[in-house]
Amino acid sequence: MKKKRADKRAVQRRRRRQSPFYRIPFRRLNNPLPPLELISPEKIEQIHHASMHILEEIGLDFWDDEALTVWHKAGAKVDYEARHVWLDQGLVLELVAKAPASFTWRARNPKRDVIIGGNAIAFAPGGGTVFASNLNIGRRPGTLEDLQNLLRLVQMSNVLHFTGEQLIAPHDVPVPTRHLQRSLSIFTLTDKAAMGATQGRVVATDVLNMARIVFGGDSSDEPMLGGIINVNSPLRFDQGMLGGLISFARAGQVVVVTPFILAGAMSPITMAAALAQQNAETLAGIALIQLIRPGAPVIYGGFTTNVDMKTGSPAFGTPEGAWALLVGAQLARRYKLPYRGSGSLNTSKVPDAQAAYETLWTIWPAILAHTNFILHSVGWLEGGLTTSFEKFIIDQESLAMFYQFLQGIQINDETLALDMIAEVGPGGHHFGTSHTQARYNTEFYEPFLSDRQNYESWLEGGANDTAQRAYHLWKELLAQYEPPPLDPAIHEVLQDYVARRERELENQEL
Amino acid sequence: MKKKRADKRAVQRRRRRQSPFYRIPFRRLNNPLPPLELISPEKIEQIHHASMHILEEIGLDFWDDEALTVWHKAGAKVDYEARHVWLDQGLVLELVAKAPASFTWRARNPKRDVIIGGNAIAFAPGGGTVFASNLNIGRRPGTLEDLQNLLRLVQMSNVLHFTGEQLIAPHDVPVPTRHLQRSLSIFTLTDKAAMGATQGRVVATDVLNMARIVFGGDSSDEPMLGGIINVNSPLRFDQGMLGGLISFARAGQVVVVTPFILAGAMSPITMAAALAQQNAETLAGIALIQLIRPGAPVIYGGFTTNVDMKTGSPAFGTPEGAWALLVGAQLARRYKLPYRGSGSLNTSKVPDAQAAYETLWTIWPAILAHTNFILHSVGWLEGGLTTSFEKFIIDQESLAMFYQFLQGIQINDETLALDMIAEVGPGGHHFGTSHTQARYNTEFYEPFLSDRQNYESWLEGGANDTAQRAYHLWKELLAQYEPPPLDPAIHEVLQDYVARRERELENQEL
Repeated sequence: MKKKRADKRAVQRRRRRQSPFYRIPFRRLNNPLPPLELISPEKIEQIHHASMHILEEIGLDFWDDEALTVWHKAGAKVDYEARHVWLDQGLVLELVAKAPASFTWRARNPKRDVIIGGNAIAFAPGGGTVFASNLNIGRRPGTLEDLQNLLRLVQMSNVLHFTGEQLIAPHDVPVPTRHLQRSLSIFTLTDKAAMGATQGRVVATDVLNMARIVFGGDSSDEPMLGGIINVNSPLRFDQGMLGGLISFARAGQVVVVTPFILAGAMSPITMAAALAQQNAETLAGIALIQLIRPGAPVIYGGFTTNVDMKTGSPAFGTPEGAWALLVGAQLARRYKLPYRGSGSLNTSKVPDAQAAYETLWTIWPAILAHTNFILHSVGWLEGGLTTSFEKFIIDQESLAMFYQFLQGIQINDETLALDMIAEVGPGGHHFGTSHTQARYNTEFYEPFLSDRQNYESWLEGGANDTAQRAYHLWKELLAQYEPPPLDPAIHEVLQDYVARRERELENQEL
Repeated sequence: MKKKRADKRAVQRRRRRQSPFYRIPFRRLNNPLPPLELISPEKIEQIHHASMHILEEIGLDFWDDEALTVWHKAGAKVDYEARHVWLDQGLVLELVAKAPASFTWRARNPKRDVIIGGNAIAFAPGGGTVFASNLNIGRRPGTLEDLQNLLRLVQMSNVLHFTGEQLIAPHDVPVPTRHLQRSLSIFTLTDKAAMGATQGRVVATDVLNMARIVFGGDSSDEPMLGGIINVNSPLRFDQGMLGGLISFARAGQVVVVTPFILAGAMSPITMAAALAQQNAETLAGIALIQLIRPGAPVIYGGFTTNVDMKTGSPAFGTPEGAWALLVGAQLARRYKLPYRGSGSLNTSKVPDAQAAYETLWTIWPAILAHTNFILHSVGWLEGGLTTSFEKFIIDQESLAMFYQFLQGIQINDETLALDMIAEVGPGGHHFGTSHTQARYNTEFYEPFLSDRQNYESWLEGGANDTAQRAYHLWKELLAQYEPPPLDPAIHEVLQDYVARRERELENQEL
């Protein structure tokens, strides 16, 4: 009896493995299309000049003594008491020019190294969310288990290039040691290009140390870890962010400088002003990084959208957000910097039609913009308060479709197939021809979630909507998950490091 | 008591009228962006040459004696028995060159005239569907009341430019007279640019006569009615379609020539072949129209997508369909013809996430392609078997967003607002500034369906998902509907015409 059940399970497992999801290969993705230039080069120069004016005449707060000293030594005008700095545009542009236009972000598994810059596009899952939701348990504060399950899904997905970092806040882990548990989970459950926490020197140093354990001392000078540095817009880099920025920069690791701007709240309401301010803030951060370590890998980050004037809430997946994504990319190209934009932003509370159309209102502009690093590309709901396990799957269908779309259409004698058109003739049918049969399995993108059955078959199959089908798929994926190989010695050192640091940080708290 | 209730209803009515939906103005829409050129001009020439080969060497069926005679007289090689025609490329291209690159499609209300061609974009609702669905009644065969309610919603919507035609099949009206009831409903319930049935000479003559009644004899020579002519791909124009094509062409009315191609079924599986065949078929139809009446308004129609190789069903909202949309537009531009593409194609059974993302996978490419006439831009489900009243509303949110997106971003001293950035300074808030307050109501697109409330408010409001909110909106719109003014004399003549023709067609049946 037991044997029979085990057999049945093995059969089910094999059958499940037949889902097209498993057949998607891990690939680099390039965008061969010309980038969509929303505004003219002259208008880009107008924004550039406005942001230079902001840097020189208005200046920015830098709430960190080391940052102020570094700026001072470089010749910037510094008000130490106000922790405020005015930056000459010549200085900023000279520093920004030191940043590499492209670089390789190493993954624990070298086959999964990611190229950042140029026409390359890479997808990172969503992050920074508080609540986990799924059709089974509903919506509740995230846990370490949620985080680990999301990382398992990241590992299973060949459309995603990055681990993400705080995919969800693990509320059952004490705040001061969360970064340790997050990084431990990232490095043991996945082998993809990793992201790490940046909130202050202590946290950043820990995650950098853990990355060095994983990658080994020799190669840890190359980009192997990246973090997001948010500007406290308007015009302020706070202490925590500057600690992280300086730590990552000094270690030669990737810093994504991203102002958090909702036009009408953290900037003037007009998107032109929001973009000029974004540009000033991003360039100021990148210039500081290049002062700390010339040539350090950076990404120009854009996360500008509008505030909803009726509710005061952030508005995502909007026409104005699409403008910002596109113009942000034009600005990044002006300075020859890789560009980060967003992917699945939306304000819906459930993984429904709104969640999908707002997401597509973000990911289409992101692709058209030639965004190199697309963060929050799967899973977000509710303006980033919630990660939905179902939406984590749903969003991947569109990402997978972009791999096919960007491969482009082949036009040649073989694909034009004039002989087949003649052979089949008027009113005929091409389904059974040798030309069709030879390409049956490979010619078209094969969805893993979209349902193309007729209504009756769909009814018989349980009349599941997209979210329900996504629920079944992520449950299945978790059941199928296997951790990537990791040298047990490295695993042990990592665990020891985490245990030691947890003790130290707990004691520091007392 | 009664008075109180009436007062309450009046208050409710006023409150409802405050929905942003009512504040959207009726506008023409232009796409100022450069069209997305998916493939190079050289590849377009390859497709062109392949389609010329198809016209000359393979030929097409024309199942209509008049069409065969017209082709023969023009010098084409005709096999009358096989009803097959071979077309010299010189002849076809000379004829196609006679078609106007743009024209005005008159509406019953002159303020709603539509420009077709160039950078103009116009939206028509979905059509050709069998089933009506809504959250209240589920899915069942459409009725005349469904059709009329959809037309009322069309009239209420300022994002839609066209009436559509068979928005849904009215199963409670006898087949031979359905076109009369449809046209009567169109001309009495809406005042927008109208579409009419094209299935054969009898039907087409009726709807052309009805349009002449509405527009008056003097001006009825101008484009005032348009119809879709589908090619029975591969390579066949059937009798019904040719009757409609010839009737509309002779009357100088708009013909949208659209091959119905699912690559792998009605054409070879490779999209290159599908597009070469589409191009041959469309140009053959347009050339015939120009033979019948040189200069008659036409639209180059593309509806090519792939077949789903697993189910044999049509696949919509696919990467391959996006290729076809974009390359189709490039081909239309090559011949200086206005272009028709699709808008809300999807295969979902319910208005859920899949319905939305597949729709956005159609409408984004359609906009980027510079599609002039976007049909099925709202309402479709299930590959066009079903019109969902909820999706009819949901899809309009994205169309409305494109109006805002395509207005583009204003970059000037006022919008760059450097004085405001200086005034608010680091860490400040822009919500209350005079600059923000002056633009509070006008700066951003205001959604009528997307929910941006926080989770708690959304819960308190009933936790409605997008489809449920759409349900409430269309119910409200129908309650608010008022028919556009129509000269009672014209109304009477129309009704008399329909009554007479119903009697005649019933008798013909006996």
